[in-house]
Amino acid sequence: MAEENVIFVGKKPTMNYVLAVVTQFNNNVDKIIIKARGKAISKAVDIAEITRHKFIQDAKYAEIRIDTETLHGERGESNVSSIEITLTR
Amino acid sequence: MAEENVIFVGKKPTMNYVLAVVTQFNNNVDKIIIKARGKAISKAVDIAEITRHKFIQDAKYAEIRIDTETLHGERGESNVSSIEITLTR
Repeated sequence: MAEENVIFVGKKPTMNYVLAVVTQFNNNVDKIIIKARGKAISKAVDIAEITRHKFIQDAKYAEIRIDTETLHGERGESNVSSIEITLTR
Repeated sequence: MAEENVIFVGKKPTMNYVLAVVTQFNNNVDKIIIKARGKAISKAVDIAEITRHKFIQDAKYAEIRIDTETLHGERGESNVSSIEITLTR
């Protein structure tokens, strides 16, 4: 069940993901990783900051990693930036 | 001259900022901070990753910080997420 505490940020509204993070913390998960790629990176930062400032004030950033992922699509390879924000409480 | 090595990411194309970072590293600056707010956060991550993968392979992430800034505008206060990526070589 190691992947249970990973939240992948996509096209849903920011608050949907905030709610998912807050719910997991309230279910006694103590480590959540928020992952995003490309333009969703800004949204991932919003989600982490809103969680910390409005809902789970004792959550801390254990690690923030940025990286590049190679996507293999119909028109060949393309690179996209990614972020992983690890929140712990 | 402490602020000389800070790059603020705005609306210009990504490669303009990459060029600015690479130029500073090539002028013997050994620490550069890339700062961005809101939707420019994704671009800041692209700039850092392109710099490291394509141009300055020995650059490392000394620190990645995310935070919330309060903007005071005509229609009152608003919060915006921010990122500071510190690159060193």
